[in-house]
Order: sequence, then C-alpha cells, then structure tokens
Amino acid sequence: MVSASASTEAASPVRLGMVGGGQGAFIGAVHRMAARLDGHYTLVAGALSSDPERAKASAAELGLDPERSYGSFEEMAQKEGARKDGIEAVSIVTPNHMHYPAAKVFLEAGIHVICDKPLTSTLKDAKALVQAVEKSGKLFVLTHNYSGYPMIRQARQMVSEGTLGEIVLVQVEYPQDWLAEPIEETGQKQASWRTDPARSGAGGAIGDIGTHAYQLATFVTGLKAESVAADLDSFVSGRRLDDNAHVMLRFGAKGGRQAKGTIWVSQVAPGNENGLKLRVYGTKGGLEWVQADPNYLWYTPLGEPKRLITRGGAGANEAAAGVTRIPGGHPEGYLEAFATLYTEAAGAIRSLRGGGKQPEGLILPTVEDGLEGMRFIQACVTSSQADAAWTRLEAV
Amino acid sequence: MVSASASTEAASPVRLGMVGGGQGAFIGAVHRMAARLDGHYTLVAGALSSDPERAKASAAELGLDPERSYGSFEEMAQKEGARKDGIEAVSIVTPNHMHYPAAKVFLEAGIHVICDKPLTSTLKDAKALVQAVEKSGKLFVLTHNYSGYPMIRQARQMVSEGTLGEIVLVQVEYPQDWLAEPIEETGQKQASWRTDPARSGAGGAIGDIGTHAYQLATFVTGLKAESVAADLDSFVSGRRLDDNAHVMLRFGAKGGRQAKGTIWVSQVAPGNENGLKLRVYGTKGGLEWVQADPNYLWYTPLGEPKRLITRGGAGANEAAAGVTRIPGGHPEGYLEAFATLYTEAAGAIRSLRGGGKQPEGLILPTVEDGLEGMRFIQACVTSSQADAAWTRLEAV
Amino acid sequence: MVSASASTEAASPVRLGMVGGGQGAFIGAVHRMAARLDGHYTLVAGALSSDPERAKASAAELGLDPERSYGSFEEMAQKEGARKDGIEAVSIVTPNHMHYPAAKVFLEAGIHVICDKPLTSTLKDAKALVQAVEKSGKLFVLTHNYSGYPMIRQARQMVSEGTLGEIVLVQVEYPQDWLAEPIEETGQKQASWRTDPARSGAGGAIGDIGTHAYQLATFVTGLKAESVAADLDSFVSGRRLDDNAHVMLRFGAKGGRQAKGTIWVSQVAPGNENGLKLRVYGTKGGLEWVQADPNYLWYTPLGEPKRLITRGGAGANEAAAGVTRIPGGHPEGYLEAFATLYTEAAGAIRSLRGGGKQPEGLILPTVEDGLEGMRFIQACVTSSQADAAWTRLEAV
Amino acid sequence: MVSASASTEAASPVRLGMVGGGQGAFIGAVHRMAARLDGHYTLVAGALSSDPERAKASAAELGLDPERSYGSFEEMAQKEGARKDGIEAVSIVTPNHMHYPAAKVFLEAGIHVICDKPLTSTLKDAKALVQAVEKSGKLFVLTHNYSGYPMIRQARQMVSEGTLGEIVLVQVEYPQDWLAEPIEETGQKQASWRTDPARSGAGGAIGDIGTHAYQLATFVTGLKAESVAADLDSFVSGRRLDDNAHVMLRFGAKGGRQAKGTIWVSQVAPGNENGLKLRVYGTKGGLEWVQADPNYLWYTPLGEPKRLITRGGAGANEAAAGVTRIPGGHPEGYLEAFATLYTEAAGAIRSLRGGGKQPEGLILPTVEDGLEGMRFIQACVTSSQADAAWTRLEAV
Repeated sequence: MVSASASTEAASPVRLGMVGGGQGAFIGAVHRMAARLDGHYTLVAGALSSDPERAKASAAELGLDPERSYGSFEEMAQKEGARKDGIEAVSIVTPNHMHYPAAKVFLEAGIHVICDKPLTSTLKDAKALVQAVEKSGKLFVLTHNYSGYPMIRQARQMVSEGTLGEIVLVQVEYPQDWLAEPIEETGQKQASWRTDPARSGAGGAIGDIGTHAYQLATFVTGLKAESVAADLDSFVSGRRLDDNAHVMLRFGAKGGRQAKGTIWVSQVAPGNENGLKLRVYGTKGGLEWVQADPNYLWYTPLGEPKRLITRGGAGANEAAAGVTRIPGGHPEGYLEAFATLYTEAAGAIRSLRGGGKQPEGLILPTVEDGLEGMRFIQACVTSSQADAAWTRLEAV
Repeated sequence: MVSASASTEAASPVRLGMVGGGQGAFIGAVHRMAARLDGHYTLVAGALSSDPERAKASAAELGLDPERSYGSFEEMAQKEGARKDGIEAVSIVTPNHMHYPAAKVFLEAGIHVICDKPLTSTLKDAKALVQAVEKSGKLFVLTHNYSGYPMIRQARQMVSEGTLGEIVLVQVEYPQDWLAEPIEETGQKQASWRTDPARSGAGGAIGDIGTHAYQLATFVTGLKAESVAADLDSFVSGRRLDDNAHVMLRFGAKGGRQAKGTIWVSQVAPGNENGLKLRVYGTKGGLEWVQADPNYLWYTPLGEPKRLITRGGAGANEAAAGVTRIPGGHPEGYLEAFATLYTEAAGAIRSLRGGGKQPEGLILPTVEDGLEGMRFIQACVTSSQADAAWTRLEAV
Repeated sequence: MVSASASTEAASPVRLGMVGGGQGAFIGAVHRMAARLDGHYTLVAGALSSDPERAKASAAELGLDPERSYGSFEEMAQKEGARKDGIEAVSIVTPNHMHYPAAKVFLEAGIHVICDKPLTSTLKDAKALVQAVEKSGKLFVLTHNYSGYPMIRQARQMVSEGTLGEIVLVQVEYPQDWLAEPIEETGQKQASWRTDPARSGAGGAIGDIGTHAYQLATFVTGLKAESVAADLDSFVSGRRLDDNAHVMLRFGAKGGRQAKGTIWVSQVAPGNENGLKLRVYGTKGGLEWVQADPNYLWYTPLGEPKRLITRGGAGANEAAAGVTRIPGGHPEGYLEAFATLYTEAAGAIRSLRGGGKQPEGLILPTVEDGLEGMRFIQACVTSSQADAAWTRLEAV
Repeated sequence: MVSASASTEAASPVRLGMVGGGQGAFIGAVHRMAARLDGHYTLVAGALSSDPERAKASAAELGLDPERSYGSFEEMAQKEGARKDGIEAVSIVTPNHMHYPAAKVFLEAGIHVICDKPLTSTLKDAKALVQAVEKSGKLFVLTHNYSGYPMIRQARQMVSEGTLGEIVLVQVEYPQDWLAEPIEETGQKQASWRTDPARSGAGGAIGDIGTHAYQLATFVTGLKAESVAADLDSFVSGRRLDDNAHVMLRFGAKGGRQAKGTIWVSQVAPGNENGLKLRVYGTKGGLEWVQADPNYLWYTPLGEPKRLITRGGAGANEAAAGVTRIPGGHPEGYLEAFATLYTEAAGAIRSLRGGGKQPEGLILPTVEDGLEGMRFIQACVTSSQADAAWTRLEAV
C-alpha cells in the first residue's frame, strides 16, 4: 500500500482562536475537527457564542482556559493581540453578516483569519474586507472546503495541463432537500439564519451553496463568469430568500471560444442530501465528479473508454497525491478535504512567522475569491429581478 | 419469477410499409426490430431509399415482394392504398424534412402513420400535418420512444396519482459526444443530415434530442412549458446548427405554484454516449431516471430513504407492469421501449379496423405532441437569437 | 451515431416449431421474442402444452395454423418431419425432464434443436442426448443466453487474446430472491417444477442458475473445472432441492498455474432479483460484468485506472461489435442477448440447408457444453453429500 | 441540516504513547490522525522505531519531548509507568509478531492498550495475551476499524433487532490488488513484513485482511463460525504466504437453522483497491455494504423495493447516529471510522480513571475478538493444508 501524507505533523502548532461555533453549531465543530486532524493547530481561545452562558459552557467543553473564553470578538481580538502567546489565527464561523466586522478587528490586531463562506452578507462589506486584508498584510483564507478534495485538485491540474483541450462547457449542480419544508418556522437554527436576509444577505440557496458551486467551477477551470442569467425561486411559501436557482453562465473567452455553463442549486429537491456535482468538458475530453463520492474522478479522453481515477490510485497526479493521506480504497471524506485547507493555511502561517514570506504556489481560496463569489450572488439576484436578463459580474 | 407480458401475440398482424430505412440507416432498422419484437406486424412494402438501387437491394434483403418495393413514397401510397391487401400503416423514418410530405400522402390514402421525431423540419409543416391528420381520421403516432420505457410509465402514473405532491421542478439533461468533432465534414451520413438546416430544420441538438428531453418532461409530469429562455451554441467551428443548448423553463401553473425546470442537451460533451436523464421533484418526493440504465427508477418520499424501484420488481405499478415483458433483473432496453409504442399502435390499429373506435386511455405520442415539440424547438431558437429572452411557446 | 447490425434481415426465414411455452409459461415467450427480433424465423408449428386445451388456445393466440398445433411432441416430430414445408428447427422450452425425450424424436426426424438449459434432468439422459445429436448430424443449440451478451463476447475475446495475462481467478455469483419463501406450496408454476426433483433433476438452484454461472465462467475463460467442493442448502424448510450453493472450484491447469474460483448461487437472498455477476482476474488485469447492467464491462489493466467499456462504445472489440444492434448508450438487454443465439443459430441452419456445412467459428453453446453443465451439477451434488469433499467432474 | 456529534470534545485528554509508527509507516500515521480527530488524546511519548535514529527523528517531527522518545518499548513501559504524568494508554502499531511482547509489558505497567490487528502472529501468543489482559484489568482494544463505520453500526443494530429475520447467509469479500506482483522482492516495506511468516504469522492475506472480513461478519451478525473449509493460494510465485483465500463457513446454529457463508480475500485481483464488501441475508430481508462507499447501506425488506440508508440520513438508527459527526451527503471516511474506536476507547479510559468502572454497552473489539480472529486464521490454514477439510475453530 502506498501512502502519501498531506502533512508533516507539527512540532510547533499554530495557536488558534474561534469566533462562533458554540454548542449546537454545525460548522464550528467541523472547523475544529479539520484543524485537529493533521495536528497543526492548538485551539486556545474563543468567543464561541453571542450568548454568554453558551459561550462559557462551550469553552469549558473544549477545555479552553476560562480566561481566554471571551464575551465578544472585539474583546478577544484586543486581548489576544496583546498577549505574547496570543492566537496567531482565528476561525470565524458565525452567520454571514458577522464575518466582516469580526474579520476586520482580528486583521487589525495582526491576526490571520480563516473565515467560513460566503465572504460577507453584502457586496459592500466584501469590498471593504478586501481592503482590510490588503492593508493588514495578513493571511485570509476562505473555507471553500470542496476545493480541498484530492480529486478536485486532480481535475484542476488536468485542466491546467490541457488534458481536456480547450474548455467549452462547465456544468455544476448542487441540489439538497433539507429546506423542502418551512423548517425555519420551527426555529431550526441552521434554517433560521440561512433564510433570513439580515443574517445571510440577498441570496438564499444561491449564497449558501451557489457560491460553492461557482467557486468549484472557477477553481477547477480557471475560468470566470462574464455574465449570468438567473431564475431564482422561493418554492416554499413564505420563505424570504431563494431556495432554488437556475443559472446560465457565459465565461470570459480564453483564446477564441467562449465557454458556457449552467449552475443549478436547490434546497427543495427531495432525494438530494448534498448533491454537489461538477462536470467539465473540453475539446479533448470530459471530467465528472460527485462530492458524495469524492474519491472518484471520471475522465473520458474523447473517443476512448471512460476511466475511473481514484484518490491514491494509479491515475492520481501530483496535485492529488500532495493532499492524500491514506491509500486508495480507504475513503477520505469531507472532513479530510476541510482539514487540507487548514493544513495548507498552517504551512503559510508558519512561513509568515517572524516576518517570513507566504509560500509560492498557494492555492487556498482568498478574500478576492470571496469577493468574486459575492459578485456572483449579487449578479444572480439582480438578473433574476430583471427576468433573468444577462448580468455582468463586473457591473454589480 | 413473475412475468407480465406487454402483448398478446398476434394472430392477425398489421400490414406495414416503410418509407426510408434502407441500407446504412440506423433508425429504420430500429423501427423494424421494434415492429417485430412482439409479433404484431408484418412488413410487406417499402420505399426504402430515394436511391433506386439502394431501395431495391434493401427490399431484397428484407424479403419484400419486389412488386411492393417502390421507387417513391407517392407511388407506394397510391398503389398500396389501392390494394385490397395493402398496408394498413406506414413507418416514416426519413430525415425530418420528408416527414410532412410523406405522411400527408399516406394519410390521404387512408393509411395510418407511425413517424419518427421530430415531427417535421418546420413549424409550418407541423401545423399543416396536424390538419392533415385531423382531416384523415387516421392514427398518427410519433415515436418518442423513451416514453415507452416501463419506468417512465411508472413515473407518469406516480406523478398523476399525486405521489410526489405538487410538482415544482423538472430537470432534464441529454448529453452526447458523438458530434464533438466535425464528422459531418467526413460525410458521415447521420451527422450530415442532422447538421443540415435544409433537412433537419432550425434546430440541431435542440431538435434532434432536445425534443426527446422536452417530450419526456411533459409526458411524465403533464406540465407544458409556458416559456423558455435558451442559449444555443455551435461549439464545433463551421457547424451550421446548434450542438449544445441550455434552456430554462417556466411551466404553466397548475393550481397555485409555477413549476420551473431546465433542459441541457449537448452533442459535444465527451464521456456521454446517450445520457438522457430525467429528474422530477414535488412537494412530497422526488424521482430520478437515467435512460442508459432504464430498468431503475429512484424514488425518494420526502424525509425517507431513497428507494430503487425496478421494472418487474416489487414496487412496480400497473402502468409499468402493463408494458413489461420479462421479470425484474432481466434487463429490457431501448428496443423493447420502442417496441411498446409499436405494440400499442397495433392495438389501436386493430381496434380501428372495420370502422371501430380508438381504444380508451391510449397515451401514445400524437401529432399534437409533435407540434408542441416543434414549438419548443422554435421557441428555443427564437429565444437564443434574442439573447435568451423568455419566449412563449404559444407565440411562435 | 455508429450502428452495427447483428443481422442481415431475412429473405428466407427459418421455419420453427415449439414444444412447451404455452399460456402462463415464461421462457417460451422469451424464446419467441428472441426468435422474432432479428427476423430470421417464422413460427409455424407447436406442441405448446401437455394440456390439450391450453395447447389449442395458445396456438390460436399465436396465429398458428390449427392443423399444426399438435397434441404431443411425438406427433409433431413425425408430421412435421414428413411435410415438405415442415419445420427446420424446434425450440424445446419444457421443464428439464422433457428435454431429452423431446429432443431425441426431433433429431431423429431430421430437425435441428434449440433447447433450453440445463440440458436434461439426469446425467444419464445428458450422455444419451450427446449420442443422439452426434448420430443425427443436426444442429443442437443450448440456450445459455448470457453468452449472447456483447460484453461477454468482448470479455471472451480479451481473455483469449491474452489481455488479462494468465487467468488465476474466476468469481461468479448468481443470487436471486424469488424463492425466499415456499411459494412452490402455493402452486406457483415456475417454482413448482423447479423445486421438484422429478422434473428438475438432482439440482435446484445449482441446476437452474448454477449451470448458467458455470457456463459463463467457462465460456469467457476457456477454462474447465477439474474439481469442485460444494456446500448445498435448502434454507426454506420443506424444500426438496437446494436453494443456495457455495462452490469452490479448481480449474484445469493451463500451462503452469492452476486457476481457482468460486460460485455462489442463491434463490433466497433478499434484494437480489437476478444478480449474475462475473469477475475474471489474470496476471495482467481484471474484468467485471454484471448481468443486470449488461452494456458495461469494467476492465482494469494492472497498475492503471479502471476503464468502462461499453457496448457500442469506443473500446468495444470485434466480438462485441459483431453482436451489437444499436449504438452505445441505447441499452440492449436480455432479449437481445437471447436473440443473438437465435440469429446465430439461423445462420448455421441456413448454411446447412441443402447439405451445406456448419459455418466456421460458431461459438453457440452445444450439447457437449450441456453435458459439461450436467457434470457440474452432479459433481456439486455429490460433493455436498460428501461434506464438500473435492469431487472431479470427470468422475461423475 | 441535522448534525449529530460522536464526541464531546475533551477538556482532559487521554495521555497516549505509541510503539511503532515511525517515519515511513502507514498505519501509525492513521492511528495518530484517528486519535486527534475528536480531540480526546494527546500524544506524549513514543518508541516509534526499532531503529534509534528513525525513532528520534520521528519523535522530533511529532513534537515529542525528547526525553519521552524511547529506544525500546520495554524502557518506555517502565519509565512511563513510573511517571506521575505518564501515559494512560499506548497504541501498538508494529508488525504482528511484536504485538504480544509489547502489549504485555504495558499491561503489566498498568497502561491500557490499543493494538492493531491481527492480535498476534501466533495462536499461542494470542492465548497468552488474553491471560495478560485478564490479569491486568486494563482496557485492551483491537483496532478492527471497519466496525467503527456508522453504517456497520446501523447494520448491527438492524440484525440484532430482528429486522432481517433469522440470518441464513453472510457473504464477505475483500479483494485487493497491491500484491499482484512480487513487490516484496523490491524491499517495499509494507509488502515485506506482510509476506514474511516470521513477522506476520501463518496467514498472509487471510491474516492481514481475512481477519477484518471475519470480524466484520461476526460483529454485524453476532454469529460465530463453527467450522471453515478453506483453499489458500500463493499465486505470485515465490511468495511465502497466501495471497488469495476461498473460505466456506458454517456458523453456529442460533435456534434451529445453521447459517452459512463465504469469505473471499485476495491481494492479487487487479482492479480492486480495498474492496471489502459485506452482505447479510435473513428470512425477512437483506443488507449490503461496501467499504469504499461507506456512507451507504442497502436494505431490502423481502418483497419490497431496495432502500438506500445513508449515514446521517432519514433512515439512520441510533447506533449509526451515535457515531456520526456530520450531516448526510457530507461523506465521512476511513479515518472517521478509525477515530470512532479511539473516541470510544477514550470514553472507557476516562471512566476507568480513579478506579471507575468500564461503561456499559461498550462494543469495541476486545482481546477475545482478537483470539477469535487468530483461531479463524489458524483454522483456515489448517483446513487448506488438509485439502479444504472442514475444520472447527475450537479445535485449533
């Protein structure tokens, strides 16, 4: 059995703090598992909840020093920034509307930021955050975790090496079914803020999962959408944000031909748990990848039989091998892909210690990618309001 | 093993003729196998090719009486219409532009017509053909063969019984890859006429396979598109008709809610042989079906595990059982589905013998379905020319 | 779309009779559809049931001339043998114990025989039948229909060309679930005779489907079992024949190494409709094929990614292409594979007309293959009775 | 999205040491990731390699205190046992022949043991180890990691609740292909010791992966094999241990009926990376599970459509939910299943702190399970040497 390791385990782990992610949160626990898996982080501080009782209880559960469990992210940024052994990086895992204010104070306190997606709840905040990151000189990582999957890295390298020829089509779909009924009315926490414009922003499904779909398309192909035509719906009556979106895409021409694509996202399609699927077609071949079965990449060279490339298997390239922990046939999953982003971020943070430089070739999603995602959301919303008129991302 | 038969084999088979389908044709041979499988037809006449030599040779190969191998469909319609033992029905399997003129003369000669899709090459011909059928009182069957698959019949019954609740989403995709290169330039027969506006009409992929996709959606759900927004491309340079189409659909509201959908068809997507896939989502459940694996229908009742309904299996309903020949686990395929249309047509033709009535509950695709398909093609072409503006099917 | 045809349709179809296969029979209808599909046969006579009423009604339904609907196969053989336009071939689709007596009289009447499997109900009958065939000089085809699948032909050619290197392992499984309950006690026709030693012979599942499994293994690999160790069970209480069998195989050494294998057959495994699956492994590669999805063959060259070879697709070889009717992505099924045997038999029968010779390279299952299958059944039964002791096929 | 957490993250992590698992080892890194994922352990000591240089370098890489990087496991057991803050548990991840001597000294030093499988290299050692564990009163966990998969826990609960009725058949297969060529001759580390009787014991594939297959069967069904008939081969010439095994099983009767089964393991089957598959059939239903796609469990109630139960999905039971970290559709993998064993072990270790009792209902694989596995290996080897004679596990 061949074993490639994504990580050298860490003699000097990165000191990490967390904003949000208290008891009952889903994504906070994911970030913590991702940070732990490869052994590059030690969680030492937190402002885990806006509810002081929950914050305290959550911190105790995690074994945090009570002194470093803070009542607000502002206090945490200030005090940790001032400590000699203060946190080097913070994970922001709150609802969208808190990303910007939280990120800003940590960046200003000289602390690197790892932030959940989408970048912010408004395009205005997103633009301001880009400036805040630039000004700070700190690392900012947006956890578009699907880009951490080995087979996605494989696909990216194949496209970039020209294996598929010129790319003409990119099809992404991301159906779910967990919002098929108005569960936000029952107080379900995840559903409540995700269907609330004040906390999520102008996009519902298009923001929550559409940005993943779009980021994946651009990450793998290197293409960016020039314009979109979008038809957004709220199929559940009374819902304030979209729960289904049909989007046609026109990519910027690379050379002569203009690539096209579609994105379908839904949270009301029964039988789909988390059905993210990417298909890329070029003049010389095609690729297919399904997130629920992430260790497989289907590759068809035009005119030849389809091939099943597996993580850790014979057809895996360097990009895939570099983020593979265990041999083929021993499935890695969602947490491993997430952990890869954390591990790569830890590498960058260590390089930056003592004034060092960011490593070459880093492909972690950046604040600019986050801004691109926000433009995508806004362009889709704008287009849909204009009866699906083509809307340029640059224009929003 | 349970065995349900689609057919009572035939003591008095229907006398059939064929226009087109000579040596080298693909779909003609398919129609003949479909006609033979259940034993309800006997092929006795043909105008098998516009090339007299090929017509003759093809007829000989099929064992036709040389007297009944005709040089033109006009001659065939006239002479067979005049014979006491003349054909009762004709299969028209020519390129699209010949469907209308051929169908017209047979209908006028009192002969039932079984015609390949799409209905015609122009919307004008389609409308004229509707009138010709009405005037004739004869049976006209359009071979949208995918609607003959047992699991498609199953899906249709499930939707109509309300198993899925109110339908909100219909997603159809139909990618192929056989036109990824400009094989029409090499003289490949199938490719040549399908990329030629004079023989195919205004639609390329959208006509050839888009009509299948659209027909399947309407057949299963009972919904019709009110309007479409379409983006058509010819990715292969020099190609005169579209080889890829992205279509967003708005269905006519049934009750309160307006269902939406998308259709993606392509003939340039490497790795897809004939990837027709239908997904239907309602407020209570979802269905998925893939033509290449036609004996399976995936059904998810909202909030319950996904179920695999199989042709001939425990979950099959009456609609499926009625067109099932052999037990579950013994796969039926494309030819069987095609044969089901022929068998149902034979039943109707026998009922009509001697002035009888058409049987109740016949769900074979009609000339009106063909006109609907032509409207769909035209609306997509018109929309695409108007930068994907929403275009009403009624308006074309 | 590329189209390869398995058949030149027939100007002079073979005149066919049938023994068994009256109303309510499953396999008789299958044989008739298989005979019709490619247009090489015309069914003109039958002894369709041992029940005279049912025989008559069945014949009427099929449109047989009442004069040629016979009360017994003996009468049929005699009268048809004497007619100038008598049948050239007969299909025998009765329970197993009638195969031998029926085949014998037709062979003696100079009529070719197409016979369902297994060959007979006893090894003694099987040996006698081999002699009867030899003596007659007539064609005898055993309908091991799974060997008609294009992807099985593909696999056979690949093995014979050495693509897999030296074969070391052959794994076949054939689970079903239709006998998981004692439905023979309810009078279910298929179940009744299949669980009755008098009509089926000494083997239950091992005879009914084990022979298919074994034949497929030998057909694809060219290997024959030297000895077997078998553990047979009747899990349903009161059942008189096995409904589950575990068999270990040692193949005859070809060159140095002795290949091994296993066969698992079951009729009591819930969730398996007709789960025939074949896997062949050699020193250079492996193959996998699943009957329920017969258009796919998985091929892995050692040390390379797995490839999906499809019927009609880019990787199909001549053996597959030769029995392919329609393009890739348009699934063919069980009936098409069955029809291929009939079509090949028709070719042979026509060659033999007027004293011609059997065509070269015919690979239809023969009476010797049937005898081999009977030895396999008997060896398994004998082994199981001896506590799974290794039992040589030659020794039974 | 519903989220169930397998763990309360840890305020007071378990102090862990490791024997083996230095640079270049595969399974050591796996154990460390498994120990880290849920945050219940802190690795503080190690005897990471028998090569002192490698031990030192490995320890540095992991950030161990150099004082607690030991040159031998004996020294480590002694010194850690004597420290106030010494390790509470040790992970033993050496080749098989070192399991017993290492485990013994740690148990004697009052340290809990987490040990890789198979238990030992000889049955004699295994029996001695059982006694050593009993004498010590310490926890001993054998990392049969596949039993940590949520869908395996689901299956176990379903069987135990009688959902499948009485179990009649258990089919396990575990094919791989990584030893299809004699890579042990090239010095490949994993291959070298696994094909070396001195380090592995009497079983090759049957020991390395056969024990996983057998353990999984017994874990899910609660059945134990009474006897086996096994045919072991070394297909690669010159190999000293088996690389392929066919095993027929007779389980101990539970109530009236005796269940049967088969196990096939191979390391020479091209196209199989790590193809562990379990199928269990009872009188009322069947289950299927494939390790490479571990988030799915197929369940067929007899006479109903097959259902796809997913980890985190609607059909998941308490046993599955209890070990699920993230929502359905977000795949968990091999490391998560492995981590579940570590997390459960941590729970037990904490309960035992200060003289507490082991928690009720613990289902972690024990030293007795390890002995059962050793009996299975030995019985298979013995049977194979006796031409596959039935061999009782109790008798070896």
